Order: sequence, then C-alpha cells, then structure tokens
Amino acid sequence: MKTVESYMNKVEVLLESLPYIKEYFNQVVVVKIGGSMMENDSIIQNVLDDLILMKYVGIKVVLIHGGGKQISELSRKKGIEPEFIDGLRITDKDSIEIVKTVLIGSINTKIVSFLNKHGNMAIGISGNDSSFIKCHKKEYKKDGKIIDLGFVGEIESINSEFLNNILDGNHIPVIATLGVDSPGNIYNINADTCAAEIAISLNAKKMILLTDVDGIIESAKDGNKLISKLTVSQCQKMIGSGKINSGMIPKVMACVDTLKSGSERAHILNGTKKHSILVEIFTDRGIGTMITEEEIK
Amino acid sequence: MKTVESYMNKVEVLLESLPYIKEYFNQVVVVKIGGSMMENDSIIQNVLDDLILMKYVGIKVVLIHGGGKQISELSRKKGIEPEFIDGLRITDKDSIEIVKTVLIGSINTKIVSFLNKHGNMAIGISGNDSSFIKCHKKEYKKDGKIIDLGFVGEIESINSEFLNNILDGNHIPVIATLGVDSPGNIYNINADTCAAEIAISLNAKKMILLTDVDGIIESAKDGNKLISKLTVSQCQKMIGSGKINSGMIPKVMACVDTLKSGSERAHILNGTKKHSILVEIFTDRGIGTMITEEEIK
Amino acid sequence: MKTVESYMNKVEVLLESLPYIKEYFNQVVVVKIGGSMMENDSIIQNVLDDLILMKYVGIKVVLIHGGGKQISELSRKKGIEPEFIDGLRITDKDSIEIVKTVLIGSINTKIVSFLNKHGNMAIGISGNDSSFIKCHKKEYKKDGKIIDLGFVGEIESINSEFLNNILDGNHIPVIATLGVDSPGNIYNINADTCAAEIAISLNAKKMILLTDVDGIIESAKDGNKLISKLTVSQCQKMIGSGKINSGMIPKVMACVDTLKSGSERAHILNGTKKHSILVEIFTDRGIGTMITEEEIK
Amino acid sequence: MKTVESYMNKVEVLLESLPYIKEYFNQVVVVKIGGSMMENDSIIQNVLDDLILMKYVGIKVVLIHGGGKQISELSRKKGIEPEFIDGLRITDKDSIEIVKTVLIGSINTKIVSFLNKHGNMAIGISGNDSSFIKCHKKEYKKDGKIIDLGFVGEIESINSEFLNNILDGNHIPVIATLGVDSPGNIYNINADTCAAEIAISLNAKKMILLTDVDGIIESAKDGNKLISKLTVSQCQKMIGSGKINSGMIPKVMACVDTLKSGSERAHILNGTKKHSILVEIFTDRGIGTMITEEEIK
Amino acid sequence: MKTVESYMNKVEVLLESLPYIKEYFNQVVVVKIGGSMMENDSIIQNVLDDLILMKYVGIKVVLIHGGGKQISELSRKKGIEPEFIDGLRITDKDSIEIVKTVLIGSINTKIVSFLNKHGNMAIGISGNDSSFIKCHKKEYKKDGKIIDLGFVGEIESINSEFLNNILDGNHIPVIATLGVDSPGNIYNINADTCAAEIAISLNAKKMILLTDVDGIIESAKDGNKLISKLTVSQCQKMIGSGKINSGMIPKVMACVDTLKSGSERAHILNGTKKHSILVEIFTDRGIGTMITEEEIK
Amino acid sequence: MKTVESYMNKVEVLLESLPYIKEYFNQVVVVKIGGSMMENDSIIQNVLDDLILMKYVGIKVVLIHGGGKQISELSRKKGIEPEFIDGLRITDKDSIEIVKTVLIGSINTKIVSFLNKHGNMAIGISGNDSSFIKCHKKEYKKDGKIIDLGFVGEIESINSEFLNNILDGNHIPVIATLGVDSPGNIYNINADTCAAEIAISLNAKKMILLTDVDGIIESAKDGNKLISKLTVSQCQKMIGSGKINSGMIPKVMACVDTLKSGSERAHILNGTKKHSILVEIFTDRGIGTMITEEEIK
Repeated sequence: MKTVESYMNKVEVLLESLPYIKEYFNQVVVVKIGGSMMENDSIIQNVLDDLILMKYVGIKVVLIHGGGKQISELSRKKGIEPEFIDGLRITDKDSIEIVKTVLIGSINTKIVSFLNKHGNMAIGISGNDSSFIKCHKKEYKKDGKIIDLGFVGEIESINSEFLNNILDGNHIPVIATLGVDSPGNIYNINADTCAAEIAISLNAKKMILLTDVDGIIESAKDGNKLISKLTVSQCQKMIGSGKINSGMIPKVMACVDTLKSGSERAHILNGTKKHSILVEIFTDRGIGTMITEEEIK
Repeated sequence: MKTVESYMNKVEVLLESLPYIKEYFNQVVVVKIGGSMMENDSIIQNVLDDLILMKYVGIKVVLIHGGGKQISELSRKKGIEPEFIDGLRITDKDSIEIVKTVLIGSINTKIVSFLNKHGNMAIGISGNDSSFIKCHKKEYKKDGKIIDLGFVGEIESINSEFLNNILDGNHIPVIATLGVDSPGNIYNINADTCAAEIAISLNAKKMILLTDVDGIIESAKDGNKLISKLTVSQCQKMIGSGKINSGMIPKVMACVDTLKSGSERAHILNGTKKHSILVEIFTDRGIGTMITEEEIK
Repeated sequence: MKTVESYMNKVEVLLESLPYIKEYFNQVVVVKIGGSMMENDSIIQNVLDDLILMKYVGIKVVLIHGGGKQISELSRKKGIEPEFIDGLRITDKDSIEIVKTVLIGSINTKIVSFLNKHGNMAIGISGNDSSFIKCHKKEYKKDGKIIDLGFVGEIESINSEFLNNILDGNHIPVIATLGVDSPGNIYNINADTCAAEIAISLNAKKMILLTDVDGIIESAKDGNKLISKLTVSQCQKMIGSGKINSGMIPKVMACVDTLKSGSERAHILNGTKKHSILVEIFTDRGIGTMITEEEIK
Repeated sequence: MKTVESYMNKVEVLLESLPYIKEYFNQVVVVKIGGSMMENDSIIQNVLDDLILMKYVGIKVVLIHGGGKQISELSRKKGIEPEFIDGLRITDKDSIEIVKTVLIGSINTKIVSFLNKHGNMAIGISGNDSSFIKCHKKEYKKDGKIIDLGFVGEIESINSEFLNNILDGNHIPVIATLGVDSPGNIYNINADTCAAEIAISLNAKKMILLTDVDGIIESAKDGNKLISKLTVSQCQKMIGSGKINSGMIPKVMACVDTLKSGSERAHILNGTKKHSILVEIFTDRGIGTMITEEEIK
Repeated sequence: MKTVESYMNKVEVLLESLPYIKEYFNQVVVVKIGGSMMENDSIIQNVLDDLILMKYVGIKVVLIHGGGKQISELSRKKGIEPEFIDGLRITDKDSIEIVKTVLIGSINTKIVSFLNKHGNMAIGISGNDSSFIKCHKKEYKKDGKIIDLGFVGEIESINSEFLNNILDGNHIPVIATLGVDSPGNIYNINADTCAAEIAISLNAKKMILLTDVDGIIESAKDGNKLISKLTVSQCQKMIGSGKINSGMIPKVMACVDTLKSGSERAHILNGTKKHSILVEIFTDRGIGTMITEEEIK
Repeated sequence: MKTVESYMNKVEVLLESLPYIKEYFNQVVVVKIGGSMMENDSIIQNVLDDLILMKYVGIKVVLIHGGGKQISELSRKKGIEPEFIDGLRITDKDSIEIVKTVLIGSINTKIVSFLNKHGNMAIGISGNDSSFIKCHKKEYKKDGKIIDLGFVGEIESINSEFLNNILDGNHIPVIATLGVDSPGNIYNINADTCAAEIAISLNAKKMILLTDVDGIIESAKDGNKLISKLTVSQCQKMIGSGKINSGMIPKVMACVDTLKSGSERAHILNGTKKHSILVEIFTDRGIGTMITEEEIK
C-alpha cells in the first residue's frame, strides 16, 4: 500500500507544473515526428501520451508526421529502389502513389486511431483536404543543372482558418505532409519544412521536431557533444562552416524559419527517449537542442 | 458560331430545372459509389461532375465510397487470396491494413483531389476521424456455426454533428467506410449499409447507390427487365422469394432501412452511365430502380 | 415520350452552366427594370423567372424598378399633364403623391407578389423604409437659371447594412426608387442612378439595366448598329460627341459610375427579349451593350 | 424663465411613470389605427408621437393600419361606388388594385415617413412581403346564400419570425393589412382581425384598437354611457343581445380573440383624443373600454 | 379623484423628455457619489431612484462610490485617529483593512441591495474582482520630501471589457474604489479620479460627481455665487490662481481629465438635492457646475 | 543539480494524473471552506493553490466560504456576545451588519485577492449581487415554541445562469453566503447548506466541504476512528441514532441533499491538511469521509 508521503509527493509534482501549464495555456505547439520513429509502436504510443496530456492541460496541439522510412520500404517491396538527391526523394508518378498510400492510408490512420482511444481527439488530414496546403513543383538545381525531382512540392500557402476550425472544434489535427498545386496534382512535401510553415501560419508558441538523435551534435576531440542551446545566427554560421551535417540541415532551417516569423523557441529532441516532449515543456530541464532568436542567458 | 436559338435553348433548359433545384435546395443527398466504378477515371470524373453541380445549386452532398475491387487486387499482389463468405470479406489483421491503405490512402485521396479541382470543396474522412463511426465486431452465423469474419464491423452510431460541421463549412465529406470500436480497433464496414446509416443520421432527402448495373433486374421469359419502381414491402417479398439476387440484397436492404427512417426515396442507379445522378435528380425521367415507402402512382 | 437523348442533352446543358454558376456564386447582381416594361405582364414574368433562377443558384439578386410610364398615365387620368425638363420629371406636391402611389402601391407590390409565388422570396421596400436612401433636393440649372424640379432627389447615401440584412435573410429586395431628406420629405429618384448607387454600396459584381431597346445603337450609313462592347473612356467620348442620345445618357452614366467604383461589368440589355439576363449571365454570348473599365480582348 | 418647481415637477412625473415603464419593458404592444383617423395629419402625428415614446422606453411596438375611408374616396373618384355587405367591402379586381395603391402606396408610406423623422425607426410592410400573412378567400353566407365578396381574405397564418426579425432589428413594423393566398393573389383583410391575429402570433401583452369614438357605448335612458370595463363573457352576451352595434362587433371580436389566446388586456380607445395611448399605458386612468379575460376588481 | 388634465399633463411631460431620452439612449453615464451622502438613507434612495429610471430608458449607468466619512468613523471606533496629508488619507495596513471592510462590506452591499429592490439590477464589485483596476503605490512628495501615504494607489489601467460585460448583461456595476498592484496588494483609490478613469475607459458621454455642495462656488463681494459653466481652460486658470478650494481640486481635475479624453460634459452636482441628476439629464435646466472642453454659448 | 531520473519521475506523475484530469474535465466542483480555516493565511493559501491547479486543468471551480469565527470575534469587539441556538447564530439587525462587513468586506475580498495573484481569476460575489440567492426568513421551532433567529435565511432559489456566466467568463466565483428576500432584506445563510444548493443548481460533479477535522469520526472502544465511506442511508441512520454529532449534522445533511439531486460524490475533508483536495481528486487515495448515494465496493 502506498504511503501518504507518496500521494503528497504526487500532488507536489502537479503543483510544481502549474507555472508551465499557465505559460502554455491556450497556446499552439506544433510537433513533428519523423518516419524513423514510426517503426516502433511503443515509441509512438509514448509520444502520443505526451500530446494527450498537453491537450488536456489546455495546449492546442498540432501533429505533423513524415513517413520516409515506410515509403522506402514499400517502394522496395514493389520493386522500386528509392532514389535521393541531397536527401530529397525523387518522386515519380508511381512513387507519389506509394507516398499517398503510406502517409495517409497507413501512418496517419494509425496515429489518429491511437489518439482517439483517449476520446474523440484527432482528425487525420493532408494538404489535399480542402486543398489547405497549396504548393508548386520544387525547382531544384545541382551544379547548375536543373534536376527533376518529380512530385516534390514547395509550399505556397497554408489555409490557417481550416486548421483553426479543427483546433477550435477541440481536435488535434494529424497532418500528412502532402500539398496540392493549382491544377490539382498532389506533391510530397518535406515534413520539417511543412511543420515550420504550419507553425508560422498558426503563430505557434513552440515547434518541436522529434528525431532519433539527441539534437545537434558537435564533434570535438573529446568525443561528440550535444549542443543544448543555439541562436539563429549561430545556426547559420554552423551551416555555413559545414559543422551541421546534411541530414540535420532541413531541420535546423525549419527551426530558423519559425523563429524569424515569431515563434519563441524551436527544439530538436530525441523522440525515442521517453516523454522528451513533456520534460521539455513541463520542467526546467532543457533536453535536446533549443534554438532561439537571440541568446538566452 | 452558335445561333441565338442555341443560347435560348440552353437557358430554357436551365429554367426547366428550376422546380428540381427548388425541391432539393438545402437538402442532404447521400451518394455511394462502389469500388467497381473506381477503375475508370472517366467514370469517376463523370460522377464527381454531377456532385459538383449539385453542390453549387444548393444541395448538401455526402459521398461514400467503397473499394472492394481495389482491396482484392492489392491483396493478391501481396500474395493473399481474398476470401468471402456470403459476399462478406474475411478481414484478418493483414487484410484490414490493406483495407485502410487502399480506402483512405488511395481511393479517398483521389476522389478528394478530383473534387478540389473545382474549389476547396471536399474533405476526406473515415469513421476513424474523431471516431465518428462507432461500431463493434459483426457476429456472423452460418448453418448454426459462428464464423469469424475478422475486422468486419457493424455500425453502432454515427456522430451526425461531426458531419454537419463539415457540411456547414460548405464542404463535401468524402467518406471511407471504416469504423472504430471502443478499444480503438478499426473495422471494415459494408459501404451500402454505411451509406444507409449516414443517410438516416443526417435525415437525408435521398440516398443514391451507384453500381455498375442498371438497377434491380427481374429475369423473365422474354429476357431480363429493369424494375423501375418498388415499394418497401415489394422489396421484402422479392428478397423472401429469392427474386433479388444475393449481391443486390445489401443494397436493397440499405434502401429499405433509410426509407423506414424517413428518407423519401432511395435509388439504385448505374453509375457507369453518364450523368445518371443528374438525370435522376433534375429530370422527370426515372432511371435505375427507385424504392419508396409506399406506392407512387 | 422523350428520348434518352433529350434528357442527356438537358443534363449536359446544366453542366455547361457550371463555370458561370461558380463565377457568380454568392455575388451581388443588381438588376434595374424600367417602367416601360411594366405594361406587359408576360415580360415582367419572364424577367422575374430569370431572377428566381439566379437566386436559386446562389446569386444575391437586388431588383430596382422605375415606373415612369405608369406615373405619367395616372397623372393624366388625374388631369395633370406630366412635365419634363431634359428628361427629368417636374414633381410637385401632387405629383410626388402619385409617384408614391404608383411605385410602391402598385408596381412594387405587383413584382413582390409575382416573385413570392416561388417561395417567400421578396420584400418590397423603398428608400423610405428605415430611411435607407438618404437624399436631398436636386439642384438643376439650365442656361444659367435654376429650375425647380420639385421633389426630385439626389442620393446622399445608401444604408447598405439594411440591404445586406435582407439579402442575408435570403430575400430579394425589390426597391422602389424613393429617397428621404433629413426633414423627412420623400423624393423621386432616377432609377438608373439609384441602381448604380446601390450597386456601388453593395460592391456588386454586375449591374444590369433592362430597357426596351437592344443596347447602345450607333447610327451608321448602312443602318443602325448595336455596339456590343464599350469602355468607360469610349462612353465618355461618345457622350461628349453627342453620339449617345439623351435618353440613354443617364443609363450610360450609371454604368460608368458603378465601374469606376469597382463593379466588373455593367450591361444595358433589352428586357423585352426573352431571358436576356440569363443569356448574359449563363452563356458566353454577349447580348446588349457591355461596358467595362478597360478594353477586353 | 421656468421655476425650479417646474423642473422638479417634471422629474417627479418621470419617476411616477417608472412602474409602468418596468411593466411594459421588452413587451409587445400591437396598435391598430383605423382609416378614419388618417384624414387628419395632426391626429396621426399625435398617435405616432406616443408610439415613438413607447419604443424609446423599451416597448416593442407593432403598428397596423386600415384605410377604409381613403379607399372609398379613391374608388368614388375613379367612378366606382363602394359596396358593402354587413360592413364588408365587396372587393372586385379593380377594387383590390385601389386597396393596394391606397394602403401601401399612400397610407403606409406616409406613416413610415412620419415615424422615421425620429430616427430610422419604421419599415413599411404588407402581408405580401415575404408572403408573411397567408390567407384564403373569405366564404360569406347571408340568408343561406353564398355571397362573393371578391378579394376579401381570411387569415390562415402569420409568419411571426418575419415580424420578430424586424422588431429585433429595432424597427417598428408598420403593417398594411393585405394577405396572400397560395397561388399568390392578394386580398384585403379586416384590419381589426389582422391586429388580433398578429397580437396572438407575437404573444403581445396588449392590443389597442384606436377608433374615433370613446369606446363601447351603452345607450341608457339617461343618455349614452361609455362602458370602461368588460369581460370576455360580458362582451359575448352583449353581442348576443344586440347591445353592441354592428360597426363595433369586429373590433370587440378581435379583442376577445387576443384575450383568449393569452394577451392580458385589449383596449378600444378614441385615437382622436390626444395621447390616449400614453394615458392608457403610463397612468392608472383607464380611458376607453378595456376588455379582459376575467373580471378585475 | 384626479382630473383628466392631470393625466394629460403627465403625458405631456413624458413627451417633453423624449429628446433627452433619445440623446442618451445606449450611452454610458458614470455617476460618483461621495461618502458624505451615504449617511442619510433617504438621500441614497433618492439618488438611486434616479439611476433606475435612467437605466430603464436605455442609459448604461455606472455607479462609483467613496466612503471617506464612514472609514474615518470606523477608524475612530477602533481607536485609530484618521490622518490626512493634503486631503489624502494615510492608509497603513490596519487602515486598508478598515477601508475594505467599510467600502465593500458595508457601503457597496447596501447600494446593491437598494438597487436590486427594482429587479436584478446591480452587481457590486471592486477593482479587486478579476483585478480589473490595476494600480501602483502613489508616490507623494511634499516640500521635496517623499511622504509614505501607505496603501494609496494610482490607477494604471482599467479593464473596460470586464465592465462592458456587466453592462451588456443589463446590470449596473456598483464600484468600490479599490485597486490592485501586480503582487496583489490592495490599495485605496481616490473615488473622483477613479470615476474619471472609468468614464474615459468606457468612453462615457457624461460623468457626474455628486457632492454635498451645489457646485463650484466663487466667493465674491456680494456673497458666494455658484458658477454654472466652466471650460477646461477656465478651470485650469482658477486652480492656478487658487480660486478653486483644495477639497474641490480633485473633483475638478477628474472632470478636466474625462473631457480631455472625449467625454462631452462633466458635472459637479449637489446630490443631496432631490433628483438633481434627472433634472440635469432630462431638462434644459443646468444645475450645479457643468464643465466642457470649449465654451458653449 | 537534479538528475534525469527526477525529471522523468515528475513527468510520470503528470501522466498518472491524466485519467483524473479527463474525468473532471469541464465539470463543476463546488468547494466550501469554513471560517475556522480563515485564521491561518498559510492554510488558505494552500487550499487556494489547489483550486488554481484545478482550474488550469479544466475544472469549473466554485468557492463558497463561511466566516463564523471572524463574525463572532468582531461581534465581541463591538461588545455583542454572539448567541447561538442549536448551532444557529441569532442574527439581529446589528449582527447582520457585522456579518456583511466580515463576510464580504474582509474574507471574500481576501480570498479573491489571493486567487488573482495567479491571473484575473476570481470575482467576489454574494447572494446580494443581482439578487442571485433568493431566500426567506428561516422559521425555527424548539420545543414547540417559535424562536426568532433574526436575519437567518432559508434559500428559495439560486440563479444558476448568473453563476454560469461567471464560470463561462473563465472566472472562479467566490461566494459569500448571504441571501436576499423579496423586499430586499439581506440574510445570513448556513454555508454548508448554501454550498449544497449551489452544487445542485449547477449540477456539480462533486461537492467538497472543508473543515478542520478529518471527516466523520466514530467513537469506538479502541479510540475514535475516521469513517472513510458512507452511503446516504447510513448517514441518515447515524443521524437518527445520534452517532453523528450536532456540529457535523448540517454538513452531512448538505452532502445528502446534493447526492439526492444528482451529484456523484460529496466529501468532508480536513482542509488544514496540505493539499487534501488535490489528493482527493487526483489520486486513488480516499481521504476524509466520502458520501455516496449507494454503496461502492
């Protein structure tokens, strides 16, 4: 049987969280989970538990998910070897079909289903619904030559009213990162960039990119070291000097973009660690890498 | 160059449609398209054009789609031979994954995308979103023995408020027929039955089931003959006497159910014929089979 | 019995109208019918049928009517010979009583009654109701001398909120062109000008002036010729050079005014020709004279 | 210069009115003025002043007007001798035109115009607007024979929502007593009956019929005497015994009807006496004849 | 028994008030009553009667009260001799307790209770409720030395939305003049200044300060004389030249402040004279001293 | 420096609270604190901290307070010895003044001020505001004789709309337990009963009575023992058999009343123990005495 002390301890913890709850009350937090985390149901469940708690204490949660790994897998099953240029997936007609099938039919549905076990919480959408993410074909040059990436899109606009209606209806929008161009073609969109654009359009207080590493790592003589705080200008320098590796660049750029447009903080966290989002939001322990507009002492 | 007469003719046609437009103004019409029609883009396009016109002249359109053929195909590609009992698909764990992938990721997305070429018209949903279709596992007995159909669901309730919000937001809900049970498992639901339940919950004026035959056919000595009108009690007799064939039974039962719950008319139309919905709604020519509560002279 | 082809033809026509329906959806169209058309019930009926169709496909219709002919007739019956200066009716105290009686009591009531046969569609109003058209006595000079036109008013302001309430209540406002000055006197107002001011205040997409001629006519050696398109500046030149005759001038000026204030197009159509409004709006056939801000190729 | 006492007196009077103001706050009062009072502008002005004050202290005022005298006059001018049976005007096709012209074009417009001098107060309507008074042709028998009264209507229903919208928009509806039947024909309706039906449909607290006599008069040996209070049953007896004269019967019956349907009090007042309405509402002096459901001590 | 004339007289008075009622319809009037008037229940009752009438004829009334006299009394009872510097009460920790007790517990409750006898009219609040009056400790210097006034506050901001909610809920806010600083301490605030700030924040049409003298008095050779009109600049001159005595200075300054921020008129009236507010508002007799931005002829 | 484990522990606790948070989301909880707890600021602060947390996680909190001890104290200071009959305070005219002063001016203000340090959270009210608690003088008989308790009231009705407006405006209503009778007299009302009536009128999920003992105590041979669970019928028996002592009777009766009217649970807790409310609501540890309609296993 539990002791009285254990109950009191529990209640004390709740009360210690009050300042954090107040700070985030009625604010938008945009969370992006990468496809790499989708393999493992217990990791997903763990992340979604965090989101549900956030919603109940008054935070407006928006969830964006990728699905790169699963797309590649399915491609291979179908006999198509995924092709990338600078980390961008070449997405031909067959591939975009696979992308749609995986992102919407499989991953999105699964996340929505997990969340709805806690009430009628989530609605699964993609930029295709009400065409709320408008995009055009991404132009990509390498070494002076234009490279045809296929159905890879660049966001033109987000219909924030559409998202706000979902939030006001007390739902978590779970967003598969597809966009539509004017003639109605569907494009794959980089999920980090998409999270950033949505965070900007909703005037989010915070954007969190969940990945499977601990944050931005600096390789030093005495081993690799997690950088826990960076400013926008430090990021830009590190990208310039090549200290941020290529896979991390779109994530860092996404953070920089939201910060420039008014979000207070952007984070790159290890989503495979238990409850990293809650630790970030409800405690004073910074984990992962936090990026801010200006230096915080 | 067109003659004046041709313009006048056009305008006269518009005016002749007025009584029909008035009759359906602000009313809900539920349309179900079967998976068999999904093969052919020009057929889909043709049906969706009809829906768009309907929406613009003030009808609240709800679109429900199946996807049986596509599900079977994908199953076979994955090496699973689809299995049916009395026309009901045995849906094991792997199969329900395929169902989700095909219905939501592929078919639903495609329909939404087609409709949105005419404005921000459509939102794709399934019963999984906000858990708006609640169901339980269907119990099925054959010859006294319980047969495990797997993830085949029977509807318990429809959250009509969720659908009405979408209709009031001036969107067409495009619905993949999945349902959720209380623990959060996802089930495949018969699309005809689902259309009927949704028509009932929305108090629809009319339900239209599109299929690839002309309606209910009576085999007679002098060849098969389309029956153009049936009452509920005639349907029940024909089912009893085996005159309605097994594939048509769920469709007819769906019609009977909506009529008993207040819809005025239910129709079984050939969706592969051009503009059959518009002809049905905007002219005095009955096509397909119309089922009504009581005889209409 | 009609053939299948005839039904298909009908439905095709409906679908051809879709782009037009979309274009005008939820837009305001201001239509003015002249008193000269009021003589003939079948002409009125014909025009009103057009308006009803327009309303049902989502257009916000505002109808403004004059009644010059009827006013003159009743005047003569009462032994008062109507007097005009430059086409403006001298309106003394007895005359304004006749104007009120004819415009509101007779013509307006008749139009409202015709429209309401199709549902509770129309509300008859004049600028006197809630004083929504504020005006002052028109000052008129001829040859340097001030001429007392009596109760002829010049519009100061339109209360567009009042009209929008009627439109939002799903009604067609049928407007008799009377205005009120601050002390509460009632004035007769030129119906063309009134239509223009109302179109401006409601930010109308289009204003249509119905008259009993085909549009603006150019007299040329080889006979009179209808001009089908004019720009604002061409109109101004033609008025300057006397090519537009005096009766047409207020109509053209009304068109010019609405175009300068943001309407896209203004039309002068022959309302005695069957369904000229519908042909104008729902086909690509320009009839009558269309006036635009800038040249359209 | 006025003395302090005169100001204090004034303020005391205002305070004495407070209980009456409280009692009628936000309540509907239906007032009907007869055509006989329309001859004299100062009488009209006097009545309307009362209504404006009522509106400003929070009463929802509905004004209904007849126009019998003026209709007869105009008929005679046009060479038609008005014909009556049991006080009911025979209204043929020409006559209904005259009725419309006079009621809407002349009297209604004038009242609205007078009221609007005090702000944008009034909207003139008839049962024709939005067809808000539905009626059918009155069947009338005399001595066993059906008599064709022409376009004389009997009310079927009042669209109270239409009136409440006008009241909620802070306007006084000024109502010309015309009704419409289903095919759209316009009928003349007895104004007293119309007032009663409207009072009932709006759940009015009080209905006041203004006429040009002091109320219900009892002829006694020692001269005529005003009856100041009557119950419904007393009214019915007096009508039965012929003590209430024929002109007064429709008024008394109108009062009886509203009382039976929930109004508290109905009054027949002399509208030609200055401020009779205000005296009735804001003082404890009963003037005219008050009719109540049950006796009041 | 009253004569007909007396009733007519009464009604005439009501009608004479109409222009005033119209002028103040839906306008905010802020009234402040001083503590000196609180001694005498019949004076309070008299003032509140005026406010109730004002509310019923459509004025949004805000009532602010002080309580200086009562605070001093209770202090003395508790053995604390009230101490003032330049008319400002030194308010130590014990004193602020007394202030709260007297203002909220006794005076405010009493006024609310009196008003509510006329319906559910009033809600008693202080700046402590929802912290709607934010303030900080007043800094006070005398002869170059800082004097600690204790818990005497200077207003920083008024939450006008909070007050407007009460007004829109059809209540009279009765306000005890306490304010709160950021750490949550409660302060006493000068009631005249508080009335001015509230009048400004609500964009009041008029502020009335009720006191127990007749207004601003000029001492002249031939005795004291009430000044009935002053402009802002005249006030400033008179304060400069010492012609306005010290007790009156905060009142005059409060008036000047509201006028500078958009109120039309501010008044200093003798609240012990019967119905002085009503005489001021509903008659053309100016009583007390009216202060305006610019001279009124 | 804190260890990672300590952060994880914290987050785990938050997640354990989720089921409780969900259960109480958007529900009303009525808390009553007795005057005995008001002496000690740290106790008050402790209770209010609990309420603030409850509000932030979505509970609609209503706080009711008594003030018996403080009233007695102030009475004695003023030389009036408090008098009680069966625990009911005799409240004469002077006493009710003291009650008002203490409850509203001192205790209520203090609680509101404490709460508002956490945002604009609380509004202090009493039944006097908008007369939202209607009552009449309590009739009290002892030994067959009527005893005049003075201004002690018995609740007739609670205006729940008034309270709901405050809750919907996102405020905690802090309620001093005064009521008003029809003529406007103010009465003291038993705070436990008042809490019960308010819980009933708001359809509260739970009512909590905080006192300074641990709950209902049973005296047994082996010492006193806290009873942790009771059903309504057990309560009634224990009162009947005298096992519940007199001071506890009104509390128990209040609990019984709310349970009979639909609340699920009522609690008597020791408010002087730290965070007893939070332990009760957010853990599975029952503390104090819980009373339910029927036995819970």
